[in-house]
Amino acid sequence: MTREGILLIISGPSGVGKGTLCAALQKDMPELSFSISATTRSPRPGEVHGKNYFFYSRSEFEAMIKRDEFLEWAVVYDNLYGTPRQYVMDVLSQGKDIVLEIDTQGARQIKKRFPQGVFVFIVPPSRDELANRLAQRGTDSKEEIERRLNLAGQELENAADYDYIVPNADLEEAVQMLKAILVAERCRAARNRVAIPGF
Amino acid sequence: MTREGILLIISGPSGVGKGTLCAALQKDMPELSFSISATTRSPRPGEVHGKNYFFYSRSEFEAMIKRDEFLEWAVVYDNLYGTPRQYVMDVLSQGKDIVLEIDTQGARQIKKRFPQGVFVFIVPPSRDELANRLAQRGTDSKEEIERRLNLAGQELENAADYDYIVPNADLEEAVQMLKAILVAERCRAARNRVAIPGF
Repeated sequence: MTREGILLIISGPSGVGKGTLCAALQKDMPELSFSISATTRSPRPGEVHGKNYFFYSRSEFEAMIKRDEFLEWAVVYDNLYGTPRQYVMDVLSQGKDIVLEIDTQGARQIKKRFPQGVFVFIVPPSRDELANRLAQRGTDSKEEIERRLNLAGQELENAADYDYIVPNADLEEAVQMLKAILVAERCRAARNRVAIPGF
Repeated sequence: MTREGILLIISGPSGVGKGTLCAALQKDMPELSFSISATTRSPRPGEVHGKNYFFYSRSEFEAMIKRDEFLEWAVVYDNLYGTPRQYVMDVLSQGKDIVLEIDTQGARQIKKRFPQGVFVFIVPPSRDELANRLAQRGTDSKEEIERRLNLAGQELENAADYDYIVPNADLEEAVQMLKAILVAERCRAARNRVAIPGF
């Protein structure tokens, strides 16, 4: 009997450091799998189908939506992005854990389609620190940063819908918390009956 | 706002290594508190009231039972043993976590009186290994060991009533799992609203 893997959903406001956290977690736990997004946008130089993204045409992507093959999907500007369900299920059925970094809208969709996932909400230490991080990215205008901060305030109100709340004040501490969550979830009674010996 | 502490209940069959595990956990996390039992038996030389045990007369103990001051209690041969609720509550209200090592009957009583505790069931790697550990203690007859093994078989059937199942095959690994459970439980959304910044 093999244990089923865990789908760990890492979400939280824009700029909170989800990507940095996931990269650090991957470095720390190289055995972990990471979900691969699908997109209709064109590959950039060096991007590989099935590694960086799954690249699909618009009609392929829309057919997958109709067949309910995404755990979540969204329109971002002119392109479609989504999380193919099959890839995640294949990893889980091998007993391996898989991490999925996603915005809060996507997390809400996944919660409906895969409630047995482990949902983690990453919180910033403060509004000012989130503002700093957004500014340091250098990708958003002042107005856009203000908009994201206000959205973050709303998102934080729903943090209690998640299983865990992890503060990202110190990157290394946050990574250790995510590791502990994985180790603990593997021990959850509902998941760990395989550990009970025959008597 | 302070986080409320966690009551971590460590239970499992006789001989599985609960005591050794708790001692190792205490060494690894010296900031942890450990519950202190009450008893009507006489102090042995060197035992200190409020440190090794709370020592009470039979009438004091029975009055405490009537006032529902125990999280659990039991008769063991001629003496009464129990877990005073107040000591545990005082530690928790200071935001500190506290560990309680207890047999499965006691754990069941605590579950009724304090369902918000975190209940961990320790399982042996196999029946043979549990038999070895019971034999190595050198305290039980062959018949008593057989009786304990059969009881363990029944107890294992109720392991799914616990929050977590931790195999005690390797002591160090089991301690790391218990630590991870504490770290993860501190991040539980229901417990960790204090981490959400005001926006």
